[in-house]
Amino acid sequence: MRYELYYWPEIQGRGEFVRLALEDARADYVDVARLPKHSGTAALMRFLESRSVERPPFAPPFLKAGDLVIGQTANILLYLGPRLGLAPKGKAGQLWAHQLQLTIADWVAEVHDTHHPISGGLYYDEQKGEAKRRAADFRAERLPKFLDYFERVLERNPKGTGYLLGKAVSYVDLSMFQMIAGLRYAFPAAMARLEPKYPRLAALHDRVSARPRIAAYLSSPRRLPFNQQGIFRHYPEIDG
Amino acid sequence: MRYELYYWPEIQGRGEFVRLALEDARADYVDVARLPKHSGTAALMRFLESRSVERPPFAPPFLKAGDLVIGQTANILLYLGPRLGLAPKGKAGQLWAHQLQLTIADWVAEVHDTHHPISGGLYYDEQKGEAKRRAADFRAERLPKFLDYFERVLERNPKGTGYLLGKAVSYVDLSMFQMIAGLRYAFPAAMARLEPKYPRLAALHDRVSARPRIAAYLSSPRRLPFNQQGIFRHYPEIDG
Repeated sequence: MRYELYYWPEIQGRGEFVRLALEDARADYVDVARLPKHSGTAALMRFLESRSVERPPFAPPFLKAGDLVIGQTANILLYLGPRLGLAPKGKAGQLWAHQLQLTIADWVAEVHDTHHPISGGLYYDEQKGEAKRRAADFRAERLPKFLDYFERVLERNPKGTGYLLGKAVSYVDLSMFQMIAGLRYAFPAAMARLEPKYPRLAALHDRVSARPRIAAYLSSPRRLPFNQQGIFRHYPEIDG
Repeated sequence: MRYELYYWPEIQGRGEFVRLALEDARADYVDVARLPKHSGTAALMRFLESRSVERPPFAPPFLKAGDLVIGQTANILLYLGPRLGLAPKGKAGQLWAHQLQLTIADWVAEVHDTHHPISGGLYYDEQKGEAKRRAADFRAERLPKFLDYFERVLERNPKGTGYLLGKAVSYVDLSMFQMIAGLRYAFPAAMARLEPKYPRLAALHDRVSARPRIAAYLSSPRRLPFNQQGIFRHYPEIDG
């Protein structure tokens, strides 16, 4: 099956968690809004605004898989995981993987709000004061809380393989690579200070980035660079 | 099976979405932190802080179901839905229900941040200025966007039954009842202004609250009242 991913063509954003899974599995997919012959976001917007879509997504990313249209990043990965060989085979393991992915989704939203604490519809400069205050709390409280949690999950995996769950890599590990990479881009000072406490997360980041298909993807033009339009943005004044 | 729900005993919060499903299905469950013989949150905290839990939840609510411990509200409902007869039978319908529930979860987080835009660890009074600004954006942009979306979902349900998906009530309908009830409590002025545009959502709220088991629950002491510690809080100055 050829999967069609619909996401903003200029940013990694939430779409990147899906792209990493598709790339690692070498799945047959098209990143619709980035096709050369398409006018960027036009196909995406046409779909979002269509009156004939019976099950409209609230926002990108969404995935077309045959007749299905699946929205919400974690839901897309819930669907794709077993099909791409990137999730446990059993239902209990799949629920656990999804639970971790949903916690990553919460974390992503909090990262976003460090630079947009008031409104996604305003520029950063219009909410810079609030951003400084929210980011200070994020660096002091929330960032360590999430890092503590996932380091603990790695530590408690009874398989002891260095992956978040079970014996093999899963889409959650790929997402965790993206979190660490993004946080290093957005908060280099805070992460340099915190990271020595989280050796398992750093090792997981390195293990994922060394996977041949991920390494090939990361050095290809398909991998968009981090930038100041995405979820992870580097503003030195909110890095502490 | 007797389900054990772990959630803060003083608030509706995110746990309420699970309680409504368990109540509507007349499931055998205990709300652990509210058992008279327990000291409130002690059992909950003991579990969260235990070093022996192999798959620790990040935060409440979580559900024990036999050997499983399931965290993340939407994930709990993904698991419970088919077991309680509150989800479609087919996998495609279950994904769609879950997608809608995840969009509700995003909405819930945005409601929370109208009164806590800077930090969940600070009092409202310590972030009141930012709360006014964030809530103004919520009332003007985000609240109508979410209401528009779910009204559209109701309108496009090809079964035309007044439920969000398919022919029968689902856990997503119960959650939508809770959203409308909570928003009316927190933002009475904004909702009075907006609601006439959303007749299908108002009708869904009424249909759910008239379900016999839900009506019995709502008038029982098991239903905690809305209050100023939960997600939905009424501060007139952020209601516009």
